Amino acid sequence: MDKNAAKKIKNNKYRLYYWPTIQGRGEAIRLAFEHAGVEYIDVARDYIGEESSEEMVSILADNDLERPPFAPPFLRDGEIIIAQTAAILQYLGPKIDIVSDKLADQVFAHQIQLTICDFLSEIHDTHHPIASELYYEDQVVEAKRKAPLFLKFRIPKYFHYFETILSNNTCRSGWLIGNSLSYPDLSLFQLVEGLKYSFPKNFTLLIKEYPFLIKLHDKVRQEPRISAYLKSNRRIDFNEMGVFRYYPELDYKFTSKG
Amino acid sequence: MDKNAAKKIKNNKYRLYYWPTIQGRGEAIRLAFEHAGVEYIDVARDYIGEESSEEMVSILADNDLERPPFAPPFLRDGEIIIAQTAAILQYLGPKIDIVSDKLADQVFAHQIQLTICDFLSEIHDTHHPIASELYYEDQVVEAKRKAPLFLKFRIPKYFHYFETILSNNTCRSGWLIGNSLSYPDLSLFQLVEGLKYSFPKNFTLLIKEYPFLIKLHDKVRQEPRISAYLKSNRRIDFNEMGVFRYYPELDYKFTSKG
Repeated sequence: MDKNAAKKIKNNKYRLYYWPTIQGRGEAIRLAFEHAGVEYIDVARDYIGEESSEEMVSILADNDLERPPFAPPFLRDGEIIIAQTAAILQYLGPKIDIVSDKLADQVFAHQIQLTICDFLSEIHDTHHPIASELYYEDQVVEAKRKAPLFLKFRIPKYFHYFETILSNNTCRSGWLIGNSLSYPDLSLFQLVEGLKYSFPKNFTLLIKEYPFLIKLHDKVRQEPRISAYLKSNRRIDFNEMGVFRYYPELDYKFTSKG
Repeated sequence: MDKNAAKKIKNNKYRLYYWPTIQGRGEAIRLAFEHAGVEYIDVARDYIGEESSEEMVSILADNDLERPPFAPPFLRDGEIIIAQTAAILQYLGPKIDIVSDKLADQVFAHQIQLTICDFLSEIHDTHHPIASELYYEDQVVEAKRKAPLFLKFRIPKYFHYFETILSNNTCRSGWLIGNSLSYPDLSLFQLVEGLKYSFPKNFTLLIKEYPFLIKLHDKVRQEPRISAYLKSNRRIDFNEMGVFRYYPELDYKFTSKG
C-alpha cells in the first residue's frame, strides 16, 4: 500500500478528541466505538504521525472556526466537527449501529444519555463544588459537606430513574431500550463502575436496592468486545484526575435510609 | 362547535409541563413557542378543566411509565412524552419552524443548546453549590465563595464561546446560525437577561467585551412576538425561586480583569 492510500484510510477513521490520561466524559464514546468494533483514532493518545494532544488544544484555541467545539470530547468525521458527549453519541449511534433504527427509540436513547450526562456533572461536582479551576485540595471542606448529600439524595434519585426504565422495558431484555444493547447501556455501566470506584463503602449498600441496574452492569461487562477492551491498555485506569475520583474522606460510612 | 370537537382541538396542542411560578429551564421552551406563534398549553399554569400542576406531579410519580421523564420540563405531543430541554427543542425546532431545515444546522443548533443548558446548570449552582435539596440560606457561605469564581472564570469562558460563533457566522446576520433566528438565539437572549438580573453590578462590566452578544440580545428583545410576550402576564417575573436569582451578597464589586 502506498503512502497516500494509507493516509486516506487513516483519515477516513473517526477522530475522537479527548484528554489522554482520563476516562472522563470521553469514555462514553470510547465504549461505544469499542463495543461496535469500529476503529477510531483517539487523537491525543495515538502518538503516530501528526496526532498528539496539541492538535486538540489547537482546535479549541482556534478563534476562526465557524462552528467551534466548546470543550472536549469532540469528534471529527471528515469535515464535520461535533461536540457534546450526548450529541456525539446521537450522531454516531445509527452510523456505527449501536442504537435501534427506530426514530422513537433514538429519541429516548438520547434523552437517557442527556440524563446520564447531567448525573456525571453532579458526580464531578462532588469533588469540585466551588470551581473546576481550583484544585480539590482547595475545596475539600465544601466537598466533605456536598458528598454525603449527593449520596443521600442524588444517587437514589438517578438510580431509581434508571431502574424504572430497565424494569418497565416491556421486552424484558435487561437493556434500557427494546431487545438489544444501545449506547446508553454502556454509559450506565460506566456510571456504576465509576461510582463503585469513587464511593466503595456507600456503593455496596446503595446498589443493593437496584437489581436491574446490577444485572445491566454485569451483562455489559460480559460483552466480548467490552470485556476485551477493559483488559486492554486502551482502557485508562480510574485516577484522581477524572470525573470519578476516590477520596476516602468523601466516602464515610452512611446508610441510604439515613 | 360541540364539546367533543373543542376537546379534540385542545388535545392537539402541545402540552408543556413545567413549574408554574418560575422561568427556570422551561423558559427556553416557552420562548420558542411564543416566537413561533404556536399555541401551547403551559399545563401547570393554565387552570382550565383538568389542567393543573397535579397532572405534572402525577406523571413524574408514575412508576409504570415505560419511558418516563426524569424531571420537568417535559413535553407531551399526543402519545409522545419527551424530557430534557435541549431534546425538546431539537424535537420541536423543525415542527414549529424555529430552526433551519438543513440537518447540519440542526445538529449545530442542538450542540449550542446543550452548551447553554450546561451553563444554566452552573448558574443554578452559584446559589446552590452544596445541594439543590437545601435552601440557599443553608449554603450561603459556600455560595459566596463560588459566585466570584463563576464571574471570573465561567462567564468569560461561555460568553467568549457564544461571541465567537456570532462573530464567525459567515452570513453576518447577527444570529448564531445562518441568516435567521433559531431557538438557541432565544435561549441566549434569556441567559443574558438572567445574568443581568442576577449579577447587575458585575454584568455591566462583563458584557462590554461582547458586542455581538449585546446586539443579539437587543435584536431578540425587539422581535414582535417576543416583545409582546415579555409584556404579557404569560412571562413570569424573575424571582428567588428560579435558576436566576438576585442575591446582592453574590454580586459584590469585581472586575473581569481581576
